[in-house]
Amino acid sequence: MPGNRRTARNLDLLMTVAWENDSVVLIDQTKLPNKLSYVRCKDYNEVAAAIRKLVVRGAPAIGVTAAFGLALAASKSKAKTLEELHAELDSAFEVLRSTRPTAINLFWALDRVMSKARQSKSIQQAKQSVLEEALKMAEEDIDINRQMGSNGSKLLQDGDIVLTHCNAGSLATVAYGTALGVIRSARENGKRISVIATETRPVMQGSRLTAFELQHDGVDVSLIPDTAVGHMMASGRIKHVIVGADRVLRTGHVFNKIGTYQVAILANRHKVPFYVAAPLSTFDLKSDPESVIIEERPVDEVIRVGKKRVAPRGVRIFNPAFDMTPPELITGIITEKGVLKPPFEKSLKKVLNQTTR
Amino acid sequence: MPGNRRTARNLDLLMTVAWENDSVVLIDQTKLPNKLSYVRCKDYNEVAAAIRKLVVRGAPAIGVTAAFGLALAASKSKAKTLEELHAELDSAFEVLRSTRPTAINLFWALDRVMSKARQSKSIQQAKQSVLEEALKMAEEDIDINRQMGSNGSKLLQDGDIVLTHCNAGSLATVAYGTALGVIRSARENGKRISVIATETRPVMQGSRLTAFELQHDGVDVSLIPDTAVGHMMASGRIKHVIVGADRVLRTGHVFNKIGTYQVAILANRHKVPFYVAAPLSTFDLKSDPESVIIEERPVDEVIRVGKKRVAPRGVRIFNPAFDMTPPELITGIITEKGVLKPPFEKSLKKVLNQTTR
Repeated sequence: MPGNRRTARNLDLLMTVAWENDSVVLIDQTKLPNKLSYVRCKDYNEVAAAIRKLVVRGAPAIGVTAAFGLALAASKSKAKTLEELHAELDSAFEVLRSTRPTAINLFWALDRVMSKARQSKSIQQAKQSVLEEALKMAEEDIDINRQMGSNGSKLLQDGDIVLTHCNAGSLATVAYGTALGVIRSARENGKRISVIATETRPVMQGSRLTAFELQHDGVDVSLIPDTAVGHMMASGRIKHVIVGADRVLRTGHVFNKIGTYQVAILANRHKVPFYVAAPLSTFDLKSDPESVIIEERPVDEVIRVGKKRVAPRGVRIFNPAFDMTPPELITGIITEKGVLKPPFEKSLKKVLNQTTR
Repeated sequence: MPGNRRTARNLDLLMTVAWENDSVVLIDQTKLPNKLSYVRCKDYNEVAAAIRKLVVRGAPAIGVTAAFGLALAASKSKAKTLEELHAELDSAFEVLRSTRPTAINLFWALDRVMSKARQSKSIQQAKQSVLEEALKMAEEDIDINRQMGSNGSKLLQDGDIVLTHCNAGSLATVAYGTALGVIRSARENGKRISVIATETRPVMQGSRLTAFELQHDGVDVSLIPDTAVGHMMASGRIKHVIVGADRVLRTGHVFNKIGTYQVAILANRHKVPFYVAAPLSTFDLKSDPESVIIEERPVDEVIRVGKKRVAPRGVRIFNPAFDMTPPELITGIITEKGVLKPPFEKSLKKVLNQTTR
């Protein structure tokens, strides 16, 4: 059995994405919080469908899952020539790439695995290197999260109450979490931290996933409707906001779950520091704010909760999955290489230069 | 059949509260948007239960419903003396008064009806004057809403998009609405107005009620999750925000549905005018901001939607029903006596002096 599942088990964390017996095993997040169950994907089309249906979500988790999707395409291939294998991987790449348009980690992960395939000299080597790279990325994801956690945890004091939006935890990564990794790390350092989770309509990643995983790990967590964020901040009890990111531009513009932008405005008004926890794989150094596609999700996410219809038939609905938070609302960006401070273009450049040296 | 039902039928509007054949007939708002059905209350305890369970909600609607509750207590009374009747009405008053703590119209309406009962010289006169006063209040509510609508509609231009939060429409009043009354009036004056309704978690008055009633009346309406307000405002398409109020203090502090405060902050940041539509019966000239009780609602509103559980068992939940918007975030307060501008203490005093003269 490959390493990443074992590692996470040693950490006693939820294991969101794992490679096991030539298949990709995912926690079925659509069933949470009512049932902790797993989906086993045996080919890359099943992986693509799982990403599309939000069985797995969260930028880093999507990246690793897609990488494993390519590994499945490689391992199941009956290609007779290296060219044929490359063509099959190209098809799988296109299918996986088209699942979600906003999270950059998806493209980053697929590109990284594909370049390994292209460097290979034989079918056998290609199959092996694709799987090895995907497994390596899963391991790295945990290490990077732990490093981000360690960097971010220094910002928190014993007794702090932290508000988070959506889910940037175990369930958004391979196992440790980005924003919630910071909370985990602070707790490992002996600090008592309480978390306030927003529900995060419409898909309710806050109530279904963040509340679930923090409760699972014994973290003190309270849930509030998205409408209560301003009221809670006015009470003066919230000391920090920490969220994840689906894409961060070189200018520090952050694309993340719909509602992040307004939480940032509310934090700004109440003088609450607003942090984004994002590994460097989440950075998009090329795009401008206007060119990033914001995914519009199906209206059914808003019309129904379970089987219950909560909106009238035929009403027009806007359901954007993400929004953009401008850098002037962001106190710092927590990465595995340290906490970037504004101006982000400059602090990011510094970190990237260090990384490549 | 008394007048208020007929009047509303002539207007071709939903009739939220009506007196019919010695009972109070309410639209069962807990069944919307799936089913337009009515609840018939035959005694004041049934009325109190309906208010508590949100069969009827919205400050003006609660006020009139409670007044009809007292009328039921009077009409069903078998008291042999005027003293006995007053004692029975006092009991009903206490039960009705304790149903919801934040909306001021409830107390205002009950006090108004009780003073009629106390002025009466005979049982027969008391029973009659209590019912007459309640019916008068229902008629007045429609007239006042129409006057507010007329005053507020001058703020809107043909083609404007207006965002509203929660439901301050037909379903929050007897028939015409406060915030949505302004939209109705603008449309009656030939202006094309589009409305963006927020879902308004946790009870979803926006999706269940506002979207339903505007669709019912043929108004162009779009629904967005509460998390998408900031993103929509950043698009620059929203020209005004208009909301209702459960209580307005003499200082201009507005208590309204949870989430109103943050919508006001977002409007302020995006330079979108933020208006509150509130009849003078919603004003509380005595209380200070700190002394108003903000109702905490049952956690089940957040844990479940219909039968579906959306949060893990045992998670701590904060579920405040209202929040407070400070006057510095409010562009104007639309009343039946005109649109109050800041400073509100001064503009309110002027209007009240005109009223009593």
